[in-house]
Amino acid sequence: MSSAEPIFPKIAIVGLGLIGGSIAFAARRTWPSSHVLAIDREAVLREALSRRAIDAAASDLSAVADADLVVLAAPVRQNLSLLREVASHASQRALITDVGGTKRAIVDAAARLPKKTVFVGGHPLGGGARGGFEFATAGLFNRRPWILTPADSSADPTGAVERLSAFVSGLGAAPTVMSAADHDRLMAFISHLPQLTVTALMEVLGTIAGASGLRLAGQGLIDTTRLASSPASVWRDICATNADEIARALDLLIERLSDLRGDLQREEIIDAVFDHAAHWRAELMKGRD
Amino acid sequence: MSSAEPIFPKIAIVGLGLIGGSIAFAARRTWPSSHVLAIDREAVLREALSRRAIDAAASDLSAVADADLVVLAAPVRQNLSLLREVASHASQRALITDVGGTKRAIVDAAARLPKKTVFVGGHPLGGGARGGFEFATAGLFNRRPWILTPADSSADPTGAVERLSAFVSGLGAAPTVMSAADHDRLMAFISHLPQLTVTALMEVLGTIAGASGLRLAGQGLIDTTRLASSPASVWRDICATNADEIARALDLLIERLSDLRGDLQREEIIDAVFDHAAHWRAELMKGRD
Repeated sequence: MSSAEPIFPKIAIVGLGLIGGSIAFAARRTWPSSHVLAIDREAVLREALSRRAIDAAASDLSAVADADLVVLAAPVRQNLSLLREVASHASQRALITDVGGTKRAIVDAAARLPKKTVFVGGHPLGGGARGGFEFATAGLFNRRPWILTPADSSADPTGAVERLSAFVSGLGAAPTVMSAADHDRLMAFISHLPQLTVTALMEVLGTIAGASGLRLAGQGLIDTTRLASSPASVWRDICATNADEIARALDLLIERLSDLRGDLQREEIIDAVFDHAAHWRAELMKGRD
Repeated sequence: MSSAEPIFPKIAIVGLGLIGGSIAFAARRTWPSSHVLAIDREAVLREALSRRAIDAAASDLSAVADADLVVLAAPVRQNLSLLREVASHASQRALITDVGGTKRAIVDAAARLPKKTVFVGGHPLGGGARGGFEFATAGLFNRRPWILTPADSSADPTGAVERLSAFVSGLGAAPTVMSAADHDRLMAFISHLPQLTVTALMEVLGTIAGASGLRLAGQGLIDTTRLASSPASVWRDICATNADEIARALDLLIERLSDLRGDLQREEIIDAVFDHAAHWRAELMKGRD
């Protein structure tokens, strides 16, 4: 792959955080002849240039005019508000994508754009609670799923999904295509619900146990609450743009916890829920360790 | 410490799982002249003898008669039902302790024993979702807390707490003394609530996402749900013997999650809960990494 002709010779990345920065590093590693331009705050761009993550820096969205691929890699609602202006500057041949954690809002917004814009939503499933360009690395996407959400997941008239799939494969990821609605429902369960649960759990137990109580906690709690350090700046947008699906997921968990609360002394119920959980945990770990 | 006079020359361990087995290994490492006897099923005892974890094996509780220290290391409710018979066989000078995850039930039961028995409850905070003698190791308790719960945590007339503290220090652990009630309340929050939450979360999201959905999950979910493989056999006893405190902890979490459900679009609320959670997570990690 390393000296292949780039799928997108000119790439513009709007927002150079963990994901945007890692895309820059990985694209330049896989396609050394590609040209990567980034738009972000000046301090970030200076660091990115000095770490040779990018070829060029800009502070104005009009700089995307030359790009074959425009990647919106700011927080979810910022991408939403940037989309229209980016689309107005992008060339007709450009493919626009994003890397946000929810997909209905941006896919719907792209469908409402005035001129014919080729947009395919994207969501690299990285993981890593720490954000920011400083943690960006070319290997971030290695063998991790990257979900693509075209407006119509059953057709690809312009070949955009195929090209974007080839691009994210080149970055090391494993592309999967689904509808934005399916994406948001699935993420509500496998990502958003766990995040909010851990956040609430850490808040509740920290408040009660206090610093002295937390000192007695074991590795189990440390693993369980790793996500509690996730930044609000990412999650407020995800909550706002997937509230309906997250609420449904929370309802199911709240119902389960309320049932359990009444069943603590019923051995057969406790056994069943632990057995089911262990089954799904084993399923989660299949082929991973 | 390694060639010191043993604090308890003769040790009897009832139940040779992860904890009991690790106590055996660690005691023989720290005090090579001590004599460790274990009572368990024959297959486990055979393996323990062949791995030189113990000096002697027995199938009958009367074998504890010689011991200076008797450790009840079976599941919580089995310890409860073994306590009376063990106490009837133990010598007057023997100190009896246990290693169960809840403390009020066994401390109360010890206080109701007919003859004067010296009992101090104990709870090594190990961590590690995998149980069984096969995972036992001398290093299990290294620098981990070991909570001691005497009937009266403000007095130590027989010096039992002091001797048991010295013993668990010798095993590598850091002893902490508190009342059984304080222990059970604290554990409800820092151990039992996280376990039940993760168990319910894994069951709910596994059921909805299915095996194909779980394949798209990231490292965040893998860390969050590590405890979901915990064995029901341990937890049914903990739930049964700490149901009141666990219910109180579940109530607080359910209330928090219910509030959050209604506040998903309220940025300032989402920001606050993430900030609080990140604060307590940082507190949890202080001095650990």
